Amino acid sequence: MQVNYWNKEIETADRAEIEAIQLEKLQHIIKAAFKTPFYSRHFKKLGIKSPRDIKTFEDFRKLPLVSKEDLRRGYPNGFLAGENYDDVVRMHSSSGTTGIPTVIYWNREDLEAATDLVARCLTAAGCTRSDIFQNMMSYGLFTGGLGLHYGAERLGMMVIPIGGGNTIRQINTMRDFGTTTLHITPSYLMHLATAIKEHGIALETLSLKRAIVGAEPHTEETRRKLEEIFNIDCYNCYGLSEMNGPGLAFECVYKNGLHIWEDSYILEIIDPATGELLPDGETGEVVVTCLNRRAMPLMRYRTRDLAHVYTDMCQCGRTHRRLSRIKGRTDDMLIINGVNVFPSQIEEVIMKIPEVGTNYMIHLTKSGAIDRLTVKVEIYSKMFSGDPVELDILKDKISEELRASIYIHPRVQLHEPGILPTFEGKGKRVVDERGEF
Amino acid sequence: MQVNYWNKEIETADRAEIEAIQLEKLQHIIKAAFKTPFYSRHFKKLGIKSPRDIKTFEDFRKLPLVSKEDLRRGYPNGFLAGENYDDVVRMHSSSGTTGIPTVIYWNREDLEAATDLVARCLTAAGCTRSDIFQNMMSYGLFTGGLGLHYGAERLGMMVIPIGGGNTIRQINTMRDFGTTTLHITPSYLMHLATAIKEHGIALETLSLKRAIVGAEPHTEETRRKLEEIFNIDCYNCYGLSEMNGPGLAFECVYKNGLHIWEDSYILEIIDPATGELLPDGETGEVVVTCLNRRAMPLMRYRTRDLAHVYTDMCQCGRTHRRLSRIKGRTDDMLIINGVNVFPSQIEEVIMKIPEVGTNYMIHLTKSGAIDRLTVKVEIYSKMFSGDPVELDILKDKISEELRASIYIHPRVQLHEPGILPTFEGKGKRVVDERGEF
Ligand SMILES: [Zn+2]
Ligand SMILES: [Zn+2]
Repeated sequence: MQVNYWNKEIETADRAEIEAIQLEKLQHIIKAAFKTPFYSRHFKKLGIKSPRDIKTFEDFRKLPLVSKEDLRRGYPNGFLAGENYDDVVRMHSSSGTTGIPTVIYWNREDLEAATDLVARCLTAAGCTRSDIFQNMMSYGLFTGGLGLHYGAERLGMMVIPIGGGNTIRQINTMRDFGTTTLHITPSYLMHLATAIKEHGIALETLSLKRAIVGAEPHTEETRRKLEEIFNIDCYNCYGLSEMNGPGLAFECVYKNGLHIWEDSYILEIIDPATGELLPDGETGEVVVTCLNRRAMPLMRYRTRDLAHVYTDMCQCGRTHRRLSRIKGRTDDMLIINGVNVFPSQIEEVIMKIPEVGTNYMIHLTKSGAIDRLTVKVEIYSKMFSGDPVELDILKDKISEELRASIYIHPRVQLHEPGILPTFEGKGKRVVDERGEF
Repeated sequence: MQVNYWNKEIETADRAEIEAIQLEKLQHIIKAAFKTPFYSRHFKKLGIKSPRDIKTFEDFRKLPLVSKEDLRRGYPNGFLAGENYDDVVRMHSSSGTTGIPTVIYWNREDLEAATDLVARCLTAAGCTRSDIFQNMMSYGLFTGGLGLHYGAERLGMMVIPIGGGNTIRQINTMRDFGTTTLHITPSYLMHLATAIKEHGIALETLSLKRAIVGAEPHTEETRRKLEEIFNIDCYNCYGLSEMNGPGLAFECVYKNGLHIWEDSYILEIIDPATGELLPDGETGEVVVTCLNRRAMPLMRYRTRDLAHVYTDMCQCGRTHRRLSRIKGRTDDMLIINGVNVFPSQIEEVIMKIPEVGTNYMIHLTKSGAIDRLTVKVEIYSKMFSGDPVELDILKDKISEELRASIYIHPRVQLHEPGILPTFEGKGKRVVDERGEF
């Protein structure tokens, strides 16, 4: 497979080099943080008097974890490094569905660094300056649209800033300009497959090579399906506006996890209940520090996203660690007899057992002071005779595999296919009848 | 008044320097044009073998005038300088309401030059890096949105890329971030005045200083009204995607015509019927050559817009000539006994006569081979007693002033206020009953 680098030296740097870069950049971020209302308050409390007080990762981990609520409480300028917007060239803000928006500020150097990183991401996904990039994401305050636009331009692709909507025009544009690369949501890409056929165009006549699919969580199965339908590569990306948007982590052409650019971010995976750092490989909350933004320093930001880090080396030669797909949100976390369990962990185990269908339910009840977990699964009819002995063996197998994964021994109930309710999301699969705490 | 320059040397260069720059840049454009299907065909026909064959403005005027239809016929790559899109970093296209869109390509240097020019425009309108720029125009393939965005960023303003719509969010953003500069359509700005009041915000509490009003034709009266309501300055800008969008011509703080950047564009005003060059001061079709775009050279492009050039020097010290407001479209042009007449010329004359109201109609009839022009106007009741002698004097006055302006002696009919139909646009005020030609 062809592997291109945007900045080979940085992308293949060894751990010691990466960590040296991190600690050096951290000095500048701490320096900027002193100019913000939020950090100046916290630094005082923590007795941090100068950037030199944060010299090691151990020092770093004394800094407070920052939540979305902290950002909201600081609206609009609690995290702004400076008295005014004179050095700021860009403001983005979240749509603020829950009320107060969260705001991001960039100065010129911050924007420059963010743009460079997106160009690196796109290069990792195989894009070159000869590619035709049709940006089907919405522009505006959403960082994904303008972020990929800037990165693609930096890389030298021909950027078609078409934005979302108007499917017929999207399709005609793909055809007339030989678009090779889409930036699109997975659901719109799925819709596009039908629309292109209805428009009387054969997919083979298009020049599509790949799609950057983002802004919506989607499963590996959805990716595979989209790749098959279009005969293209689909690349997963991960970003959040608080962390400069789309440049945070991106899949390389090997598509086995998302390289998080550790020269520009410090990644931590923590136990969302205790805030303690987890070792690589364990699933927990993604906590990120942006090392590229001085107009608005933000360190140890709790993303509420759950993922784990891959520990093996990637075939592409990049040394930056890889994040798994986001497995869920901390908001979904269940605490069962003091143990953190995510519905997605249960789903993962179940899906690997061939005798089991894709439908399941999670029930939580209380027996005295003890939480009881019951997992109801549908058996996959074609693989199963209905012999009660076989059923018991399967039950034990599921129970045992769940215990190995979530450290809780659940009760397992098997059901015939079509008995359990079907849902789109994960949330509704959990029925918690333990009452108030 | 405070006058700032973005590039003082260029902006205040004398005519000889400007023309030298034009001819020098033209060499590069001609060189690029040889690589396009359209121009290579035309150059062969005209016997142009090298850029050196176009050394003077006289040579230049031998080049063909190019129409929107030529662009459409060349869809998508008839004006692309090169075999592929490798050097192209941006494509824009018109919405193509009439069918085939028109397409614009920029290479990196083209985009750079276009961006620099928008920064120059914004500086001319008094913007500085301390300003907060809320871009309320739609992003995407429309060049106005991204064009102003890039220019404002280059200037170092804080750009809020909010795009169009969601008025409440727009207003909250203005309030919370102290927006000083809006980029907005005149009709949306008018709507905003009401919306802000309804939202319970006093206009004086906002930090607004100015608005760049574009994308819609509007009158001087509308501008004055908006300036009064908001107590801000409104700046008119002129651009079209075929000419790189918004950087073409912009008002300076003196607001007496739009400086067209002649180091980057060659401006001609032609008689739309004959194609002949008109002297400065006469109204005709705006024809523009872009000197900043090599990925897609476009020379002597007929904009179909009607305007004239101001001949007096501007107080700001800029030497680049000023374009009047666009007075209409060549599509509106009437040919009366062989003379080109624009309804806007008639409107202009009528509006200057205090005894006349704002409502009028233009009737064209045939008397044998001769065209007859009748102008029906409503008199302004408050200024008029109804004395028949006075009415005749007024009639003659209107007729004489129209003749002096359009070189045709019209019949004038006076009407009481409220008699003539009222319209929003100009087109319907013309009733042409001369039949088919
Ligand atoms: Zn890799
Ligand atoms: Zn001026």
